Amino acid sequence: MRFTSERRLDDGVLEREFTLGEIPGILWTPASASAPAPLILLGHPPLGLRRMYPRLVARARHSVARGFAAATIELPGSGDRPRWPDVERARAGLRRAMEAGEPVGDEIIDTLVLPLVDTAVPEWQSALDALLALPGIGGPVGYSGGLISIGIRLAVAEPRVSAAVLFAGSLVPRALVEEARQVTVPLHVLLQWDDEGNDRQASLDLFDAFGSEEKSLHAHLGGHTGVPESAGEAAAEFFTRHLT
Amino acid sequence: MRFTSERRLDDGVLEREFTLGEIPGILWTPASASAPAPLILLGHPPLGLRRMYPRLVARARHSVARGFAAATIELPGSGDRPRWPDVERARAGLRRAMEAGEPVGDEIIDTLVLPLVDTAVPEWQSALDALLALPGIGGPVGYSGGLISIGIRLAVAEPRVSAAVLFAGSLVPRALVEEARQVTVPLHVLLQWDDEGNDRQASLDLFDAFGSEEKSLHAHLGGHTGVPESAGEAAAEFFTRHLT
Repeated sequence: MRFTSERRLDDGVLEREFTLGEIPGILWTPASASAPAPLILLGHPPLGLRRMYPRLVARARHSVARGFAAATIELPGSGDRPRWPDVERARAGLRRAMEAGEPVGDEIIDTLVLPLVDTAVPEWQSALDALLALPGIGGPVGYSGGLISIGIRLAVAEPRVSAAVLFAGSLVPRALVEEARQVTVPLHVLLQWDDEGNDRQASLDLFDAFGSEEKSLHAHLGGHTGVPESAGEAAAEFFTRHLT
Repeated sequence: MRFTSERRLDDGVLEREFTLGEIPGILWTPASASAPAPLILLGHPPLGLRRMYPRLVARARHSVARGFAAATIELPGSGDRPRWPDVERARAGLRRAMEAGEPVGDEIIDTLVLPLVDTAVPEWQSALDALLALPGIGGPVGYSGGLISIGIRLAVAEPRVSAAVLFAGSLVPRALVEEARQVTVPLHVLLQWDDEGNDRQASLDLFDAFGSEEKSLHAHLGGHTGVPESAGEAAAEFFTRHLT
């Protein structure tokens, strides 16, 4: 892990860009801390860190204000990382199906999501190795948001993740819905009731599938990007209960 | 409205029992307040105030700690109030159907719930008249919990109610599911995912039916009485956002 830039945001938060091998990432830490901070990994959709930056930094500021460190890395095939032709084709197919209002076939979902999950999750685990070795960052670790399929696999595969906030979606490979039954960490799941890109019933079924003994679903009226500010506060409360 | 007893709880909360005509009730107010407190009406199932007291006083303490006044009244046919033979019969029928694991027919639900709603809601409105005339109690008013059918009618009929926390249930007359479309106040709806007494899909459909532009559903794993403490905190946050 190599830091490539460093700056102070106006609220004192230290923002550092880094690379982990070929993978760019960003770390946000409190201005000062008396003890190692618990860490929240900020997931995001595969649209590129640069495009997602405004939303990521807002989430990071909220996390840091509550005493967490927050970090994210670029997803494979996104941003400045090399394209994946298969994934690009599946993405175009997804866009066509959604614009035509047609159901999205399992094959498109599998082609789009499974390689991403298989490649991204070990990368997030490597990032975790590097981040937890830094002074000022301790455990426990939470994972928040982004593609729910990545959250499912990470929660199953990575014992250092001890709580997760997930955004319910329906573009989830069947194999990962099955994998959700193996998730045991406390979950706080957000659902947008009128999400134009996700089937509500499939999202509810996915929530039902999670094996966690402590899980809750928080559904808000509105479309995909309409999560209200109060929902962010409640998710932060959840992390505060479970990671501090 | 006539106060019949008064005592200080250990945290300084003032608890006063009252009667409103024939109807017993309880009012909880802060130890001291600089401005008139907003009011939360504490709904409850028709099991009698005495039996519900431990849960009611816990909810009241939480409300008062956040600067609200809280009040409740006995439901018709419950506690020390005169029995309603028709309702008693419907209640027995409900119990038989649920113990036998049979679906509960519309007729049982209508006989059990509609007279209760028709009688209780004007009583809560009268209580509101009396409570809001007391020094130290102002608006706005929230309604919390209890039979969701009463919450629906009260939210539609009573313009002084400006936000509601409701417990989703499926034992709701079809007429009231229709009435839910007329509800416009902000709603925070709690659902127990494994509620043994309520059908999950019917509860989700009822949530969907509410006309409010701001509504959210908070589903927690567990049975009917297993609402976690954190859910109570989140509901209190909702009232703080909307009533203060």
